[in-house]
Amino acid sequence: MRQFQIFGLQTALIKPGDSLLEHLYAAFDTQGLVLQDHDIIVLAESAVATAQGRIIELQSIQPSEEAREVALQYDIEPALAEVVIQESDAIVGGIPGFLLSIKSGHLLPNAGVDGSNAPEGHVTLLPADPDALAHDLRKTILEKTGCVVAILIIDSRTHPMRYGSGGVAIACSGIPAIIDERGRKDLFGRELKVTRRAVADNIASAAELVMGESDEQTPAALVRGLDIEFGEFEGIDLIAPDECIFIGSLKKAYITPP
Amino acid sequence: MRQFQIFGLQTALIKPGDSLLEHLYAAFDTQGLVLQDHDIIVLAESAVATAQGRIIELQSIQPSEEAREVALQYDIEPALAEVVIQESDAIVGGIPGFLLSIKSGHLLPNAGVDGSNAPEGHVTLLPADPDALAHDLRKTILEKTGCVVAILIIDSRTHPMRYGSGGVAIACSGIPAIIDERGRKDLFGRELKVTRRAVADNIASAAELVMGESDEQTPAALVRGLDIEFGEFEGIDLIAPDECIFIGSLKKAYITPP
Repeated sequence: MRQFQIFGLQTALIKPGDSLLEHLYAAFDTQGLVLQDHDIIVLAESAVATAQGRIIELQSIQPSEEAREVALQYDIEPALAEVVIQESDAIVGGIPGFLLSIKSGHLLPNAGVDGSNAPEGHVTLLPADPDALAHDLRKTILEKTGCVVAILIIDSRTHPMRYGSGGVAIACSGIPAIIDERGRKDLFGRELKVTRRAVADNIASAAELVMGESDEQTPAALVRGLDIEFGEFEGIDLIAPDECIFIGSLKKAYITPP
Repeated sequence: MRQFQIFGLQTALIKPGDSLLEHLYAAFDTQGLVLQDHDIIVLAESAVATAQGRIIELQSIQPSEEAREVALQYDIEPALAEVVIQESDAIVGGIPGFLLSIKSGHLLPNAGVDGSNAPEGHVTLLPADPDALAHDLRKTILEKTGCVVAILIIDSRTHPMRYGSGGVAIACSGIPAIIDERGRKDLFGRELKVTRRAVADNIASAAELVMGESDEQTPAALVRGLDIEFGEFEGIDLIAPDECIFIGSLKKAYITPP
């Protein structure tokens, strides 16, 4: 029987310069958990960004003319618009309160710049080089404990035309982020043509069920018992815009942003 | 400590007219599981549609002129295009191999019409009235076993510009599909402004980690121990297109479909 378990990991408030590993080890100790081979550790991007010091005080930002225009058009604070523009590779549109950004091949609101769980008047940016950080954490844990684990750094996203945010992985080290089932057989013995499973995103969503986005201080989770291959897997393959059914279908608007 | 467990439920091959409950009870027995209060049972839409007999033989379909044109434009079998058009409230675009449909307020590829895990030359449609079915299953289980459970029917979707499919709920009975955290406080005591959690979608994604889309015959999962309120919750609120950052940002293309 395929089965697995997920535990929320509660930590003290994470501050710039903190060691994420020390927070994790303390959470394990406090909760009576012992790290095992093939554990998957899931970290919220906001906790990672905070530890990295990726926090900006909005008052320190001088909005450009472009930022002021975008801020007016989409009903956003001009300083926030400036930070989002600086953090984005491209802005492809927006709705009141949010810009839709492309950043490092990811499509996401406000380039991941977020005022929740940041000190008053501040915003957190997305973590710097999350893939490298996930890799380093995995290797350090292997050296220090001998345990073969995987590390995911996750963010929240919405699906088109659905309410509510779920988890997606922005970094994945130690397990494949996507499992390609093309070539496998279906129930009737025919080859599957398009099925790729977003395993890392599914783990991210599962972890969000035990992690807190408000005052719960549960910025991490432990996934144990999942039947998946562990090894030297790194990163998350991204799709070309035209291959994406949403962007591909609506590409006139995508190609000529406002 | 917040924690929960997920078990894959293996069944015999589900056929039109089968009782889903009998398949579920058999799976519990075989796997030595005993239903408990506050268990969440997750069912794949393909299994539900098959039991409902929502299977169509493509050879029996006479494609319309519109279907032939769409089929040519998007490189799809004409009979499949006809079924997708019949199942859709609107077609908003497409990419080679897929049409992007709106059906009952949901945005999804091919209106959920799927050839995987259907007999040769056949496709399965989405389940008929999944909300009513989820409700009925929940009430029947309560009557027969006395257990307060929740029922989810799930499908697979991709996020914009990401590879791989994850789970989303298309029906939810017995728990809230979305938890609204607006008004709650963040780590620094400020009110959260926009956070709604797509709990049902997160459970769907977690369940996909133990469910099979190929020949594994694991069309259901059991989620146990999740800290969530059970009660007379029914259905999934859907978003207006303009409130959706993807459609709202790209709405010129949305308003004038090809």
